Formats: sequence, structure tokens, C-alpha cells
Amino acid sequence: MTSMPHWLSKQSFLQPERHAVEFMDGSFLTFRDLETRSKRMAGALAHEGIKEKDHVAVLSVNHPSFIEVVFGLSYLGARAVLLNIRLTPEELSYQVKDAEVETFIYGPEQAEKVAGLGNENLTFLSFRDLEGEYQTPELKETIELDEVFTLMYTSGTTGNPKAVLHTYGNHWFSAVSSALNLGFDREDKWLLNLPLFHVSGFSTLMKSVVYGMTIEFHDHFDAKAVVESIRQRGITMVSGVSVMLGKLVKALEGKELPSSFRCFLLGGGPATETLLKQANEAGIPVFQTYGMTETTSQIVTLSPQDAVRKLGSAGKALATASVHIDADEGETGEIMVEGPMVSEGYYNRERPTTRFFATGDMGRFDEEGFLYVVGRKKEMIISGGENVYPAEIENVLVQVDGVQEAAVVGVDDEKWGEVPAAFVTGEGIDRQHVKNACLRLLARFKHPAYIYHITELPRNASNKVMKHLLIERMKEGKYDEIE
Amino acid sequence: MTSMPHWLSKQSFLQPERHAVEFMDGSFLTFRDLETRSKRMAGALAHEGIKEKDHVAVLSVNHPSFIEVVFGLSYLGARAVLLNIRLTPEELSYQVKDAEVETFIYGPEQAEKVAGLGNENLTFLSFRDLEGEYQTPELKETIELDEVFTLMYTSGTTGNPKAVLHTYGNHWFSAVSSALNLGFDREDKWLLNLPLFHVSGFSTLMKSVVYGMTIEFHDHFDAKAVVESIRQRGITMVSGVSVMLGKLVKALEGKELPSSFRCFLLGGGPATETLLKQANEAGIPVFQTYGMTETTSQIVTLSPQDAVRKLGSAGKALATASVHIDADEGETGEIMVEGPMVSEGYYNRERPTTRFFATGDMGRFDEEGFLYVVGRKKEMIISGGENVYPAEIENVLVQVDGVQEAAVVGVDDEKWGEVPAAFVTGEGIDRQHVKNACLRLLARFKHPAYIYHITELPRNASNKVMKHLLIERMKEGKYDEIE
Repeated sequence: MTSMPHWLSKQSFLQPERHAVEFMDGSFLTFRDLETRSKRMAGALAHEGIKEKDHVAVLSVNHPSFIEVVFGLSYLGARAVLLNIRLTPEELSYQVKDAEVETFIYGPEQAEKVAGLGNENLTFLSFRDLEGEYQTPELKETIELDEVFTLMYTSGTTGNPKAVLHTYGNHWFSAVSSALNLGFDREDKWLLNLPLFHVSGFSTLMKSVVYGMTIEFHDHFDAKAVVESIRQRGITMVSGVSVMLGKLVKALEGKELPSSFRCFLLGGGPATETLLKQANEAGIPVFQTYGMTETTSQIVTLSPQDAVRKLGSAGKALATASVHIDADEGETGEIMVEGPMVSEGYYNRERPTTRFFATGDMGRFDEEGFLYVVGRKKEMIISGGENVYPAEIENVLVQVDGVQEAAVVGVDDEKWGEVPAAFVTGEGIDRQHVKNACLRLLARFKHPAYIYHITELPRNASNKVMKHLLIERMKEGKYDEIE
Repeated sequence: MTSMPHWLSKQSFLQPERHAVEFMDGSFLTFRDLETRSKRMAGALAHEGIKEKDHVAVLSVNHPSFIEVVFGLSYLGARAVLLNIRLTPEELSYQVKDAEVETFIYGPEQAEKVAGLGNENLTFLSFRDLEGEYQTPELKETIELDEVFTLMYTSGTTGNPKAVLHTYGNHWFSAVSSALNLGFDREDKWLLNLPLFHVSGFSTLMKSVVYGMTIEFHDHFDAKAVVESIRQRGITMVSGVSVMLGKLVKALEGKELPSSFRCFLLGGGPATETLLKQANEAGIPVFQTYGMTETTSQIVTLSPQDAVRKLGSAGKALATASVHIDADEGETGEIMVEGPMVSEGYYNRERPTTRFFATGDMGRFDEEGFLYVVGRKKEMIISGGENVYPAEIENVLVQVDGVQEAAVVGVDDEKWGEVPAAFVTGEGIDRQHVKNACLRLLARFKHPAYIYHITELPRNASNKVMKHLLIERMKEGKYDEIE
């Protein structure tokens, strides 16, 4: 299997003085600094008994020590189990047990939550506990691409969460395939404000050491801070989701961004036409992408020049990857993906034996081969013998005046088997406007039989809508239909 | 092992209308055109009985059909044995036999040479023979990175030539590692005027399909044509050797190149300070590199910002590669390299069992880890117990007024065992100037005992100086020493 020099050590050798990470307060770490600190961290972790192949959990907001722990573990050949700070102690306990974690490292702000965990066989260490004594263990200066580096749990909207295994190769090919798609300028600078415990944020950290690129590290998303970073400090790339893009457009207050800013990498579902047009007017080049934890982030991308022409499409698979639809040509079916950034499977679960990874998402290709994601397989509604994909309806609903967000589920129906029920948030929504939009854009069997107005969509820790709760609450009579 | 979609098919899918290859007459092939033509070529090759794993020789100058044959073979899973057009029929016969070639494809201008070959068991096909009938065989749409794609012979300055095996992975990692070093702009356009049968030219073709980048295809090097391409047609990158860089500087006639031109990738040995300064003044950003057929071209590179500060250095190993010197720290020793672009070995020869590939070149690191190549291991001169590397002396001699080229060899000496003898070309060379330069820049034991003035250096088909001929001719009294 392929090996290569450790990414961080190599960048420290190639460009010791280049900034690896810049912080909002103006401080920074060069690649040499980051290497030195991560190796010291590896020594501290070794002092605590951590060794090759150990599973070490990390629970923290974006924090400089998080980065050092990640690379410190990598120098020891240990694996980082990245935990979501939004989880309850019960959910964390499940994951820590499932991943066979022995040591649990946490950020200062997590102390209270950690106290509620109470797993007896775990060693708990705060970042501060790792600032003292350290050893000088043998460090891994060569990366074997087929070794596992990280474990990240996929959301538990349905069923128990599973730990996605990412090898070094998954991360490397993901970073490189993205560069082949987006281009890579030696002066690029990427803003990282997504959580490091998600693949979206973590993949930006990987790009930093694989490319030798400076990242600016924010502890959360703040639209004004993003604008300032782009204008004042030469940020050229940002990743985010629709809602962040919307806030960014608003924060610009009608002013354009400098042309040096060349990419807003948009994940988490397609954007509306209105938003894309606003972004375009504001000089924000939007690259829409499709990806998930199992694909180590981005695997399908739509370029800005196609953004309006192919509205709603996720684009085409990156150079090293393939997408296949499990259906007859031109039909909608499950999206299957393949490529060296696709995870080999989940920890302690049976490995898939198929060449393609079944995403659980439904999609179709247009005549030019652009991918359209039309919903989740499990959410598919069958109404009068016709397949209905909630996302297709949701995409129409969010275009209606006043609608902010929309979710659609299937509910039982005597006549049709199932019918779609819609849940919308927002203000001043007119039922007739909704009906008109559906009439204009959707086949009759896709029209929601019920349209409920709710305050906000119930979401889980990974920000996915918990549709089963919508059905429960609806049945309990907690929601009112729009007049 | 890692696999990915066929590079050409993929680029044709991702950007069908982008120009893959542009020709000097203004014509071009889009990626879709090139895919279509290469697949038709695969059908014609299959019609001639060529199948998976077959060894197929190609002998041609840079010609559009050469490209189609290369990709046609790849769609069949056959291997291309790339032959040097400068070889004599005797040399070609040796290589064709050594590589167990079954089919021999040649360009129109090679007909006469091919007629002199006379190998009985070979099928000879001209490009024109492949323009007629074709089949529609099953094509390989997936590339397995560990499959062999090409065989290229290393020069025969010493011993018999050997066929270097290149897998698809070697070519892919070479292209990608270069992009991580040089950056990759979506609007980059690379001028290819080096021969396709050398790894230097072939690697540019690989970059085209791995990046999805336009190349401009010239059939030979012409400095004025290069300048015109850069000025008129947006060329951003060119590869070449010192003598080409010199001609390019001259062709500019004191005028600068546009700033869009961002890289002259300089191989084939270090450039002189004078040349680097001239290039710098002409706005040519020179990236000096070290590489060889076995490393699938570039493996060590020096950036323009270090070009003068680290004069004579080859730079640092690319992100995925490592260089090691087989000697104590700071000392000169054989250069050993490792990385996913390094060939696994030679066809029908014993595979190396070591982790590092021994280059046969001698080098040392400076205190910052920059590599200096100081000569070939086999050419090493031992004089009075001291090791002397010819290249070190040659680098000094070419700085002397009037000296164009220089070669140094070891000749037997009663007192010292061996002493260096120098052979220089050029006009108006003053022996005292040579002596002064040596006194200034070289330890006494490195000074040439003899300095011969000759008309030109004898070179083999791969343009390497045949030093054994220098010694022979010197002993035969054919050369005169400088007064």
C-alpha cells in the first residue's frame, strides 16, 4: 500500500515559516510551530499511556489544542474518535462504548458534560492535563494510506449511530480530489469555522497539511467575521451550508466581495434559486457539493458556471470518484458512490461487499450526467403506486413567499396508501400561494395533503430534521394546518 | 489497490468542450474529441489483435496519432513501450526484444528506419494502418493504479539499457504531487514540446488528463514559437532544460513575458547563476527540478524564491516523496528516493528489495535540507584518497568566460591514483581564467590536471555525455590542451 511522509512534518520541512493556522486574535502557528507543538502533544499523550491503534475520544469546540491532539495522536499511530458536542451524555456514552474508547480527551468547556458521563473504564483527560509532563516516544514519520486515522459517528435520525472509519488515504484523496476540482493556488487561504468534529470542518484541516495551505480558525460561524476575514486577511475559500450563505449575503449589505475570494463550498443540500442569484450578485462564487461523512466530505460538485443553469443539481463526481444510480437509465434510484475517499465501512460492523457504497440517498441524472439528489431512500413516500421523494416537495415549498424551511413526510391514507404531509416554518404564508406553487411545479400526486405551520423544525445533534418527531407531534394534534 | 475512473473518459465527462490538446496550426481536440478518437483507436488496435497486457512499441516524433495510440492502448489494458527516435536500428532491435514487444507502431517519418529493423516476429503498423477498420472491444473505464501503463528505456551511457516500468499510479501521483508543489489553476495551459517518448514530455500529457488541463502540442522546441504561445495563447507553464531556457531568454530580446506565465519547470541539471539572473530579469519564474525516468520525472523541486539563494540546489522532495543521502549527516553520498511516483523496477530484471530507490547520483543536503546533486556515483573520481565529483568541477568550468559546456572525467595518474581531466567547448577560453575560477571555488585536489578544448561533447541518443569516448579520444591524442 502507498505510503508518504507525515503531512505535517513534511510541510514543516518544505515551508517552516508559512502560517499553518491563523487565529481571530491575530496570533498564528507556522507549520514548524504546529509540528513542534503536535510532537510535544504526542509525548504528553504517550506519557498518559496512549499507544498505537488506541481509540481516543475527543470532545471539544474548535480549540487550538484540538488540532494538536489530532496530530499528536497521528504521530503515535492512535485513532481519534471525534465526538459531537451537541450530544447528550447518554448519546456520548453509547458512542464511547461502541467505539471501544479507552481515553477521553475534552476541552475546558465540556467539563460539566463529561462529569455526567460516568463510564468506569475510561481515562478522562482535559486539554490542560496534557500541558505538563511528556515523554519522547518514537513518532510515526511515515503515513500508510490504508491505516485508520479517525472515527466519526453518522447521525442517528434512523437507527443507532455508527462510527465511520476514515483511513489516511480517505482524507488524502479527498483533499487532493477537491484540489483537482477547485484548483489550488499557492496563496489560497481557507476559513475553517465548521466544527472540527464534523467531516466538513475536519476535511479543511486535512487540506491545510496536505496542500501546505494556511487556514484561519474560527470557533464558530459569524457572518460579519467571515466578511472581515475575506476583506482584511485574504481568505480565498470558505465552506458552509445554505443558511450560512444566506447570512453572508446579508452581512455584505449589498457590497461586493473582493475578486480574490474564489470559492464558497456549499454543502448540506441544494440552495434556492433566490439565494444563488443573491450570492451571484454579491460576487460569491458558489460551488454546490454533495457528500457525507462516509465520503469524507465533498464527492460531487457543481461549478459556479453551472449553478443557475443546473439549479438544484449537486453536479458531477470528482475526478477520482464515480456515481451510479441504482435504477434504469434516466430513472430515479439510490445514489451509489465509489472512489478512494469513500470509507471502507463502519467500526465493528460488517464490511460492505459491493464495489459501490449505497448512500441511502435517492437521485437521478439529467441528460448531461448532472446529479440531482431527490431525497432519502428511507423517507420515500409511496402514494397511489407512485414514488414520491420528500426533498422534491421541500424544494418547491421553500420557494413560496414567507416559507423559511420545509419538511415533508409520508402519512398513512386510506385511499392512496400514503400521502405527503408538509411542515413549514416562516411568517405570512398563504395556503393559496403554496397550492399555486405545487400546481405549477409538481405532479398532482406529489401535492401535500396537509400543510402544517410550525415554529421550528425539530433537529438532532447533527442538524438533521427528525421527521419521526414531526409525525408523532402531528398525530398528537400539536400542530395546526395553514388556513 | 486504489482504482479510479479512466482519466480521459472522466475529463470528457466533466468538461467535454474544454480543449485537451491545441496544435500550432490553431486546430484543437476537446476532451470529448480526444476520448472519441482514442476509443476509435482502441478499436483499430483491437482489430489488429492487440489485447490486455500486450507490449506494444511506439516510435514517433510528437504527432497527434501518438496521443491517440497511447490512450487507445490504455483503454485495452495494453502497455506502451515508448522508443527513442534517436536510436539506431541496432539499439531499437535490442529494446524491442528485451521488452518482449509483439506489435510495433510507428509514425510516418520513421518508415525508413523501421525497414532496417527486420525483426521477424514483429507486426509493424504505421499510424496510417490504424485509420481503417476497427472493432468495438470492451474498454477499460476503470484505472487500477498498480497496473503497468508504460515502459521507457533508461539511457545506455553505462551498460545495457533497461525498461523502466511505470504504473498508472506512478503517473497519477507524479502529476498530483507536481500540482501540490506548483499549484494548479483551472485556467493553466502547459506547452508540451519535449518528446512524448521521454518521461519529461509524457508526464505533461498525463497532467493534461489527470488535471483536465489544456496542453499546446509542439513537435519540437522552437524558442520563438514558445514566446509566441506564451504571449498570444495564454500558456502558463513550460518544461525544458537549461539550453532551452537560454534560448528562450535570447528570443525575448530584452522584453518581459506576461505575468500570467508562471512556471518554467527546469530539468536536466542545475542552471548557471548568469542564466538564472537573466531569466529572472526576463520575468521567467524558474522552478529547478531533479528527476529521472525512474521517478516518473520531477521528484525534487526548487522554487523561484530560493533559486538564487540556493544556487545549484535541486530543492526539496515533493510532498509525497522523500530523499535520503546514503552517508553520515552533512556528508555527500548516493541519493536515495522514495515515493508513490518511483518506479517499482525494470522489466524482466530483479526487483529492488530496498525501501529507497538508489538513483546512482551523488548528493548532499545543506543545513536547511536543500538537496545538491554533485554528480553520478559511477563517475566518481578518487584522487589522493579524496572523492571528487565531476559535476562539481563542471559547474565551475561553465562559469568561466567563453566556456559553453564542460565535462570532467577521471584519468589514471601515477602519483594520485586518479586526477580530473576537463573537456570544454566554447570560444576564447583563457587557461588562466579557468585556473583562477578553480582556485577561487574548488579545493586544490579537485582542480583539473588537464583542460582540453574540443568542438562539441559526444552525446548519446538520450543527450547524455558519453564520457568513455572522451577518455578514449584523449588517449588517442585527438584533443589539444588549452594554451
